[in-house]
Amino acid sequence: MLRKIDTCFSPALYEPEQHKGSVVIIIDILRASSAICTAFANGAAEIIPVSGIDEARDYKNRGYLVAAERDGYVLDFADFGNSPFNFTFEKVSGKTIVYSTTNGTGIIKLASDAAIIAVGSFLNIKALLTWTGNQDKDVMLFCAGWKNRFNLEDTIFAGALASELIKTGKYSTICDSTLAAIDLWKLAENDPRAYIEKSAQRSRLREKKLDDCIDFCLSTGFTEIIPVLKNNSLVSLNY
Amino acid sequence: MLRKIDTCFSPALYEPEQHKGSVVIIIDILRASSAICTAFANGAAEIIPVSGIDEARDYKNRGYLVAAERDGYVLDFADFGNSPFNFTFEKVSGKTIVYSTTNGTGIIKLASDAAIIAVGSFLNIKALLTWTGNQDKDVMLFCAGWKNRFNLEDTIFAGALASELIKTGKYSTICDSTLAAIDLWKLAENDPRAYIEKSAQRSRLREKKLDDCIDFCLSTGFTEIIPVLKNNSLVSLNY
Repeated sequence: MLRKIDTCFSPALYEPEQHKGSVVIIIDILRASSAICTAFANGAAEIIPVSGIDEARDYKNRGYLVAAERDGYVLDFADFGNSPFNFTFEKVSGKTIVYSTTNGTGIIKLASDAAIIAVGSFLNIKALLTWTGNQDKDVMLFCAGWKNRFNLEDTIFAGALASELIKTGKYSTICDSTLAAIDLWKLAENDPRAYIEKSAQRSRLREKKLDDCIDFCLSTGFTEIIPVLKNNSLVSLNY
Repeated sequence: MLRKIDTCFSPALYEPEQHKGSVVIIIDILRASSAICTAFANGAAEIIPVSGIDEARDYKNRGYLVAAERDGYVLDFADFGNSPFNFTFEKVSGKTIVYSTTNGTGIIKLASDAAIIAVGSFLNIKALLTWTGNQDKDVMLFCAGWKNRFNLEDTIFAGALASELIKTGKYSTICDSTLAAIDLWKLAENDPRAYIEKSAQRSRLREKKLDDCIDFCLSTGFTEIIPVLKNNSLVSLNY
């Protein structure tokens, strides 16, 4: 039987009970899911996602390395924010990182009832597709969006994954969000950078001079690592 | 100053406080907003939108003409459901209709704080564009979706409106939902019927043999009437 693919455009639209048996792919391209993939590629041992600022501060007070931002800005108590370029080998290798972001980390909590929760980005897309295709489960592509709103960059990535999974012949979809994501990816795939030039997050990052990482976040094949949630922490499958 | 266009894909994503000064266009192409436009074109005096089934039943008991459906099926106490073909001149001319549907009528209530609330469909798109462009207000394109989920048919209609409004030179958008809707409309505009063939609602209506109205719901120029909300009832602007 064909497995199904669903896509969720916002945390406010997520229906946990629908995806208990699914692989949920966490998508926050600019920048949390790209940063998480980078951290593991650079040897991070574990990432503890936390939704709240107070919880993140509490971890900091207990001596943890903390990455935390809101609206792109590093929180005052944190060691660094959520640019993937912060998660260097020197800073993260072998370390446990506590991580809290505006959108991305919250959806990991929302999805925590699912069978498998993995983090996806263009950086690990190739490995992610192979691995996902081997799970023999329905797939939920969970876009973080921006403050509960739909965003383009997460959607085109969901469309890229859905297109490739359907090409394997193992999946189908009757989800309008997935169909829209696939169509938008078709418009974007020749030049994703140009396509998301119009997106709101692109403008936000440019205004805050935080857009230096966009080319990197859209590059594929950077890592084979797939971050997955185990016991409320993200760890690398390939660890 | 350019007026802005926002698009909301689901009742669950609507932010009432953001749109108090806006024209909100209510969009539920298959089938509530098409049915409402048809009712007024056929002379209905007033449509009272109600969200709940009990409220609709109560109106029926008080002698009102009631159109009510859930998941496409006419409710047992109702006079008819929400196919536009139900709202004939013989049935609705001069009448007050109480109307309750799965998705469309609920969003009218959600939007009720906005400056102006109007109902849009392909049937009245031409008049709607002219009128909206003359309001000198920001525009919110509010898609009913399906049970809080994104749907394609409402989205392409939002994209059609946004594309045309931007062409007037009076509007711009930095809303990713609007940008996506415009891109999807570009894919659909040559043949909207073929484009929505893949949509979930298309399948649902086909399975229930309720798809006879789709060609009609996608036809443009059927009426010049613009239904607007006044004192919790829809009336025709051109009345």
